Amino acid sequence: MYEVVLIRHGESEYNRQNLFTGWSDPDLTEKGVQEANAAGKLLKEAGYSFDLAFASVLKRSIKTLNYVLEEMDLLWIPVQKSWKLNERHYGALQGLSKSETAVKYGEEQLHIWRRSLSVRPPLLEPDDPRYARNDIRYKEVRPGDIPRGESLEDTVARVGDFWGKRIVPLIRKKERVLISAHGNTLRALIKFMEDLDEPTLLELNVPTGVPLVYKLDDDVKPISRFYLGVPEEVQEKAREVANPSKVTE
Amino acid sequence: MYEVVLIRHGESEYNRQNLFTGWSDPDLTEKGVQEANAAGKLLKEAGYSFDLAFASVLKRSIKTLNYVLEEMDLLWIPVQKSWKLNERHYGALQGLSKSETAVKYGEEQLHIWRRSLSVRPPLLEPDDPRYARNDIRYKEVRPGDIPRGESLEDTVARVGDFWGKRIVPLIRKKERVLISAHGNTLRALIKFMEDLDEPTLLELNVPTGVPLVYKLDDDVKPISRFYLGVPEEVQEKAREVANPSKVTE
Repeated sequence: MYEVVLIRHGESEYNRQNLFTGWSDPDLTEKGVQEANAAGKLLKEAGYSFDLAFASVLKRSIKTLNYVLEEMDLLWIPVQKSWKLNERHYGALQGLSKSETAVKYGEEQLHIWRRSLSVRPPLLEPDDPRYARNDIRYKEVRPGDIPRGESLEDTVARVGDFWGKRIVPLIRKKERVLISAHGNTLRALIKFMEDLDEPTLLELNVPTGVPLVYKLDDDVKPISRFYLGVPEEVQEKAREVANPSKVTE
Repeated sequence: MYEVVLIRHGESEYNRQNLFTGWSDPDLTEKGVQEANAAGKLLKEAGYSFDLAFASVLKRSIKTLNYVLEEMDLLWIPVQKSWKLNERHYGALQGLSKSETAVKYGEEQLHIWRRSLSVRPPLLEPDDPRYARNDIRYKEVRPGDIPRGESLEDTVARVGDFWGKRIVPLIRKKERVLISAHGNTLRALIKFMEDLDEPTLLELNVPTGVPLVYKLDDDVKPISRFYLGVPEEVQEKAREVANPSKVTE
């Protein structure tokens, strides 16, 4: 039997201001730091340990991981950071607020962007300063692979590639893996483990800062999954991220 | 021309209490955190950037690196952590204070342990809880390679191996490398770059939390070296770590 633990980063500055984030790189808020510390304490108290960890190249994911590892006295384990675990790229919506977007494009369009599988947000123009082609952290990525805006399907595809090639082989070697990532990236990982259909994928909301434990069989398919922590608090957190008036991704 | 930047971790809890540290794993003090943040600011203001970084598996080195990288907005770069960059192993002296040690073994013996190249401290007994053989962070290390106490020469040998095999090849590929490590580990690295003789090695004291920049020629030998920061402050910091009434390693 294998095991993997997922965690969604705690509250960021953009989350607090209700802005579309995507590949923008805001810091954690004080609340986000507390969520990360609390997750680390939960994992430690429940007796978990890890051999290696993954994060995206966005600081809210890396710092969440670092706070968790520090609480667990595991700062010394290897950490692999990859852009393939970045949040869904939200194109020209990045940095806009929920209400600005609703005024500019209409509530209905906004709902489609957020809750369809294949519709992309308005793409960044090639000269937009938010376009990551000029960001040194993506210098190893082929320019054609750097998105200007992704549908959820696009995100799922890049995460699936990384999951299959980089994470599953380690899980099969019995490495105890922790993955710190983002709302849509974790949805994608869960889709691959659970073979979720489209409606279930679209309804899935992973709460922030709560360790999600998967027990996996020999085919890396779930035997069981559960959140660590007090069930009522976990449910409250899941309701927060599912609130349609909030943007959390 | 190549370049590498070294940094010695900021003040730890053991430093503050004047205890021999070695492979013990105390946290940074608030002052140590400030030193690390200040080093990151200096590097950023001077226009430095890095492609990858090294640390030991001890949290004072990892956290110093994380604070530096955070100030530089470089948390996303790859970080390699290795026990080969750990501080000199101080054997049975680890956790003892300077004054306890002087009472127990005499000032002269203490001076020999701290300022000779080849004399080992009293070794840990195999059943000593401080012996790292049972620490999971060293589970990949062959048991015979886990020290029970090292002379400076022992430390230099393991660091030299790591320097030659793991760091120099990256420097030769023009990777911009940052190394966060410890007093004796940095001494060792400097010895290999500068071909230091024994007396110079023994007199060398790298101040804490001050970035040390090396410009290197095609043979990875120094063309120049300099500390970033206000020269008077750097000198004051070098005097602090050279003070014989303090143990800083």
